[in-house]
Amino acid sequence: MNLKHFSFKTTDPVAAQLDALRPLNTADVVERLNKLKPALADATFAGLSDERAINVLEAPELLRAPQLLQALPRPRRARVLEGMADDRAADVVQALELTDQAAVLADLAACAPASAHAIQKLMRYRPRTAGALMTTEYVGVPADWTVAQTLDHVREVERKRETVYAIYVLTPGSDVLQQVVTLRRLITGAPGDNILTVAQVNPPVTVSPLTDQQEVARLIRRHDLLSLAVVDEQRRMLGIVTVDDIIDTMMEESTEDAHKFGGMEALDAPYMQIGFWRMIRKRAGWLCALFLGEMLTASAMQHFEGELDKALVLTLFIPLIMSSGGNSGSQATSLLIRALALGELRLRDWWKVALRELPTGMLLGAILGVIAIVRVVAWQQLGIYDYGPHWPLVALTVGAALVGIVTFGSLAGSMLPFVLQRLRFDPASASAPFVATLVDVTGLVIYFSIALLILSGTLL
Amino acid sequence: MNLKHFSFKTTDPVAAQLDALRPLNTADVVERLNKLKPALADATFAGLSDERAINVLEAPELLRAPQLLQALPRPRRARVLEGMADDRAADVVQALELTDQAAVLADLAACAPASAHAIQKLMRYRPRTAGALMTTEYVGVPADWTVAQTLDHVREVERKRETVYAIYVLTPGSDVLQQVVTLRRLITGAPGDNILTVAQVNPPVTVSPLTDQQEVARLIRRHDLLSLAVVDEQRRMLGIVTVDDIIDTMMEESTEDAHKFGGMEALDAPYMQIGFWRMIRKRAGWLCALFLGEMLTASAMQHFEGELDKALVLTLFIPLIMSSGGNSGSQATSLLIRALALGELRLRDWWKVALRELPTGMLLGAILGVIAIVRVVAWQQLGIYDYGPHWPLVALTVGAALVGIVTFGSLAGSMLPFVLQRLRFDPASASAPFVATLVDVTGLVIYFSIALLILSGTLL
Repeated sequence: MNLKHFSFKTTDPVAAQLDALRPLNTADVVERLNKLKPALADATFAGLSDERAINVLEAPELLRAPQLLQALPRPRRARVLEGMADDRAADVVQALELTDQAAVLADLAACAPASAHAIQKLMRYRPRTAGALMTTEYVGVPADWTVAQTLDHVREVERKRETVYAIYVLTPGSDVLQQVVTLRRLITGAPGDNILTVAQVNPPVTVSPLTDQQEVARLIRRHDLLSLAVVDEQRRMLGIVTVDDIIDTMMEESTEDAHKFGGMEALDAPYMQIGFWRMIRKRAGWLCALFLGEMLTASAMQHFEGELDKALVLTLFIPLIMSSGGNSGSQATSLLIRALALGELRLRDWWKVALRELPTGMLLGAILGVIAIVRVVAWQQLGIYDYGPHWPLVALTVGAALVGIVTFGSLAGSMLPFVLQRLRFDPASASAPFVATLVDVTGLVIYFSIALLILSGTLL
Repeated sequence: MNLKHFSFKTTDPVAAQLDALRPLNTADVVERLNKLKPALADATFAGLSDERAINVLEAPELLRAPQLLQALPRPRRARVLEGMADDRAADVVQALELTDQAAVLADLAACAPASAHAIQKLMRYRPRTAGALMTTEYVGVPADWTVAQTLDHVREVERKRETVYAIYVLTPGSDVLQQVVTLRRLITGAPGDNILTVAQVNPPVTVSPLTDQQEVARLIRRHDLLSLAVVDEQRRMLGIVTVDDIIDTMMEESTEDAHKFGGMEALDAPYMQIGFWRMIRKRAGWLCALFLGEMLTASAMQHFEGELDKALVLTLFIPLIMSSGGNSGSQATSLLIRALALGELRLRDWWKVALRELPTGMLLGAILGVIAIVRVVAWQQLGIYDYGPHWPLVALTVGAALVGIVTFGSLAGSMLPFVLQRLRFDPASASAPFVATLVDVTGLVIYFSIALLILSGTLL
């Protein structure tokens, strides 16, 4: 292959790229275009056939889809948009500047008004809803058709549509959904029979266009569907969400949730693609917010300055104790974020969780407390370090503080996702650093309060 | 519906359950069985029809699948297993005790040797590989068949198989894969034409049975597939992985990754279902390991005891500085875990990431440093707190330490997933608490070293 490229060597870089792209499948073409310099990518993309260009633009992995679309001459741009699945076309148009959006849609409306209308409608749905995810290009047939009529219809439309996963059977003369027929059941039907004879027995699973994409994913998974009908209040078909859109969505959500749990704004592009300043903005915001919150620890320490001065030995354990509270909180938060996301728990179950985390936190804190006490006793007895004449009380203080702080961490960490959900935030916006910060300040107060209780009269 | 139940009220709780389950779809039956007490669930399950029992056992959401299978009388057990998709059957059998596995497989081998053989073969593949995920029940036809022959074949097998997403065209007389035909393309073919006329143009995407499930998910997503062929080195078909298995897998992986990033072992059951002691075990292990690691902070503090004694003011900022290092590390780790999981970066790209994180960390550290200096200056000038006669040097120490620690945190956090991947661990085993612990100890050393540098001769 390399040899062949050598012999047909050309001095035009665009022609060379097009040569190289010819034998590749769509996914590889996309990968290659993503790696080219913008100007060369634009020119190469413009050299692709319409069919290729449509397939490339439909790949969600394509990084500069709006820019590439804009690189096409105006008549081709409309033709390519018309050829695309309308949900993806709407996403790409939405990513253009507002003035460009209007121009592109006007061009499209001139040559394909139905397509322009569908795209405009899809653009109106809020992101992360079934409406924004769906395509309006489903196969609907009236309920009085036969299997043979339906098969003929599928044969005809298949040339244009890539989303034929199921047939939606509608009340004749309307868009009202009656039943769903999967392709494999369609094939098994007797040609002369009514289409409803091969339909599923259970009523079809549907969602409203406002349903959250997480719920859509849950339903598709729960019922092993390849596509899910989106209907309005009168059960009129609006579109379908397909399983491949859901997979893309789930991947994106996993990444977003991971970034958020790591304590930053979710990146909207791959790590190496995002610009330096955009990266700084995504990270600095939360980092500064957490820093300001954590400043309260300095205030708390200043408040206990007298105690610190008298019992410097207490400072030695501050990082150890505080991090344990943060760690147990981070565990509890990650548990509850997922349990809420998967629908295993609802908002009203918060007290059940609290009742579970209370003994869990106490036991986990006791385990760490025992380890800490063993450490102080061992270091003291082995002569590694001298914790002073009141070392047994110091050990007791550290152990007791750990029970209190780990319990508080587990409780606070598990309740945070509920609080966020109650306030109508995404529970997944809770992050490990946020929980740690929350627990740190309280942890210090717990530690010094227990120290005052145990050590007053001796060290304090 | 309630009324109806009232009128047919029965004293037998099993019969009552069966009555209530009758109108429900599979997903709802599963949900209901999950909520029943074990003994009642077992008895109710045994009362279901074979077809219902098969559908219920195939739902990955079912919690006590192995126990329910065991609750069936022996001959029914084999019948139900034979009816199940063999990949799911293998999962359920694998979850039984070893002696029970042997008994169940022996019964099955007596009445359906092919099914027993297929299940035993699937059980040999390592978890989380294509081999463990795949089903051997695909539709394969020889390449010399016509479209009509293939359609007839699908009509015949469809009654038994739920996994007909595509037709695998094999070299006649062998299992060697030649091409893939999607159902929708099959429908469009002319009946008398050869099956290859409706095949895809590109060579089919395949994986080996040893391919990791994450890579399988990536390929299915990348090529928008409904099923993916698993082949051996000679391109002989072994089975297929279907899109609904991949969705289940992705959901489970998201949850596992979230738990691990939260700093614990992944739970293998929903939050409210897992026993108290199992929960403690899943959390205590990492919590103790992190605690032991964090103990080094106490050692570091003991080492700098002299400095602490002379400059107590330094202790005030310890939690603030340390948490900032942990937070920036947690951000970097979550970024890199996802970038590696999505295949955006490879192991050999580590230096590109390091070159990016170095200036990012320095700038982020500088931002926080400036905030800290402003705070010290403000508190001092406004008379809120007195940081002593050398307060400008204290402010400088804190600011400089933040630059150093945030830079170190970003670097360490971003390199950790690479190190884990290099050591053949899952990069997703890196957790926010682990990074924080890693950064805390070093952070203390950085802080005191900078303090010695800036404050020696004045405070120290």
